[in-house]
Amino acid sequence: MIGDHLGIGPDTRYLVLVDGYLDDLHGKMAHGILRFRPDGVAAVLDPRFAGRVAADVVPGVSARVPIVATIAEGLAHTPTALLVAVTPAGGRLPPAWRSYLHESIDAGLDVVSGMHAFLADDPDLASHAAQRGVRLVDVRRPPEEVGLATGRVLDLVDRRIVLTVGSDAAVGKMTAGLRLVEALREAGEAARFVATGQTGIVLAGWGVAVDRVIGDFMAGVAEELVLRAAEDSNWVVVEGQGSIAHPAFSSVTLALLHGAAPTDLVLCHDPARQTLTDYERFVVPDLARVIRAYEELTGWVRPARVQGIAVNTAHLGPDAAADLLKRVEGETGVPAVDVVRDGGARLVGALLSEDPARRSDASRRGADR
Amino acid sequence: MIGDHLGIGPDTRYLVLVDGYLDDLHGKMAHGILRFRPDGVAAVLDPRFAGRVAADVVPGVSARVPIVATIAEGLAHTPTALLVAVTPAGGRLPPAWRSYLHESIDAGLDVVSGMHAFLADDPDLASHAAQRGVRLVDVRRPPEEVGLATGRVLDLVDRRIVLTVGSDAAVGKMTAGLRLVEALREAGEAARFVATGQTGIVLAGWGVAVDRVIGDFMAGVAEELVLRAAEDSNWVVVEGQGSIAHPAFSSVTLALLHGAAPTDLVLCHDPARQTLTDYERFVVPDLARVIRAYEELTGWVRPARVQGIAVNTAHLGPDAAADLLKRVEGETGVPAVDVVRDGGARLVGALLSEDPARRSDASRRGADR
Repeated sequence: MIGDHLGIGPDTRYLVLVDGYLDDLHGKMAHGILRFRPDGVAAVLDPRFAGRVAADVVPGVSARVPIVATIAEGLAHTPTALLVAVTPAGGRLPPAWRSYLHESIDAGLDVVSGMHAFLADDPDLASHAAQRGVRLVDVRRPPEEVGLATGRVLDLVDRRIVLTVGSDAAVGKMTAGLRLVEALREAGEAARFVATGQTGIVLAGWGVAVDRVIGDFMAGVAEELVLRAAEDSNWVVVEGQGSIAHPAFSSVTLALLHGAAPTDLVLCHDPARQTLTDYERFVVPDLARVIRAYEELTGWVRPARVQGIAVNTAHLGPDAAADLLKRVEGETGVPAVDVVRDGGARLVGALLSEDPARRSDASRRGADR
Repeated sequence: MIGDHLGIGPDTRYLVLVDGYLDDLHGKMAHGILRFRPDGVAAVLDPRFAGRVAADVVPGVSARVPIVATIAEGLAHTPTALLVAVTPAGGRLPPAWRSYLHESIDAGLDVVSGMHAFLADDPDLASHAAQRGVRLVDVRRPPEEVGLATGRVLDLVDRRIVLTVGSDAAVGKMTAGLRLVEALREAGEAARFVATGQTGIVLAGWGVAVDRVIGDFMAGVAEELVLRAAEDSNWVVVEGQGSIAHPAFSSVTLALLHGAAPTDLVLCHDPARQTLTDYERFVVPDLARVIRAYEELTGWVRPARVQGIAVNTAHLGPDAAADLLKRVEGETGVPAVDVVRDGGARLVGALLSEDPARRSDASRRGADR
């Protein structure tokens, strides 16, 4: 089935290789695993923090996962795979890491990687892995069988499909989606997370890195992922990518909007961000403009409204955060919440009790097609 | 340089293989070559029409290119390459055509293909071509070196970048772009066509099939192509793809909008089309809505207006066509023209004498970022 092509199950216990990046933005894959699946982490390898535990180094992590300095020390914590959990500049394996990988392969560990450059295409590593009988799994490798979007997703009329979208790239769309699924399940709903990026895929154990798919087929892959998730779930929560406002990534964003055909949107926003990620020419746009753009674009396939805004208030104290959320609500007329501070319950409340006036307004807009 | 990775020059003389599709929509690559580069066609291979000439079979073609029944007959017209000029359902080589290809390779012809499945990845054909010392060129194969969009295209402040966009897919965006370049050159302007699909690439001798590029890099490739074309031209005319209204292709459309960062748009429309191509759930949308959507989307990177509408009136007589064009102009307030009937001169006129009020309106909109 789509998204199972990687063969990484939910039971893998990782030694997380993040040498030099544990306190860095490039370590965000490691941060995601430590926050959302700490039981799947045997140990973290970053010599700079060896001897401490992850909870003491990474904000938002409560697990007391040991940090080690060498592969040998990591093996003592009985991992089943090494996770190359960084996105270094250029997307390639730092040369100094090659010995870490060979040492892990020698110890019989599979190697799972979220890097842009595929480990299995490296002849040196591939031959060693084959000889030792372990697997090199590149999480961003797309499935072989992909096709064009067909619109079959529009036949799902009794499901709620929630897509997280952003005012910029790297603004918390995966986190909001995961928190929302947790909160939906706590509310007794059958909900499933659809992972569309490398970290989400490692967390969920399935999915497709949609931005790595051939352009023509991105929307088709998004549709297939939703159809699969909808088989056992009334709520399908799709991890968004990029931002309609970000010229380098907007096509991936739109492929998810038009391929997944959401019934509801959750907008993610970081008010501390001034300019777009890696694209300093442009400032982060006004939220009202962003909301209008997403609602108009999704209207080409199915009307959907922004039902909530997930705001990152990590840089603020509790009172200032509450004030900011109130201000965002006032400006947009949409419930605003910090899902890291407060969880996803309030978003679930907004989705479950959606204002009929807002939905019928959206339907009316869709009808002018 | 980007777009030169295929190594097909402008001097190739093709034997055009279109067996069974010459009068069919799947033969549209052959139609494009016959209409826009008939000097590059030695002969056409379609046994059903053998003995006639292309002008008698394909509407809009004036060249008296011979149609033959066999490769041997085609060779008598001294081609330098075989062009596999169809897009069969499924995108793969029809099994019966394999013998055509072997016969051409035996005769020392290169084989150039616009199909989705790459000939060079077929071991049988690849080994024969290697043995005979001829090349298998897959026009849709993307370049190896691609990167993210950077926004450098926005530094081109003294160029006009025109992107053709559509109310649906397969609606004449390449044709409008080529006619526009012809008309700009006739008006004494330095203009260059940027090919983004297989037929345009064969016509221009360079380019990239943008929808075949990894999603992340589509916008970056569009940007690179524009930067290259702008080196020797004041006018860069970019072939659009898909339609913002077509859920299966809209992400490719947006990659071109945000990667090429046009200064002007030309909208292509076929009023005889009722529903979207291969997506019958949706009707072709209202033109005013389409224009608004394109102008709002391009506004994320650079303000641009729809300066003209290229309408296909092939199904109408001259008077009915003129009435239709007037009606489209009345509804949209934008000059409408049939570029196949009348050429691109009127579009050039609209672009050269653009209404300052319309442009300043667009600038104002862009400024609300």
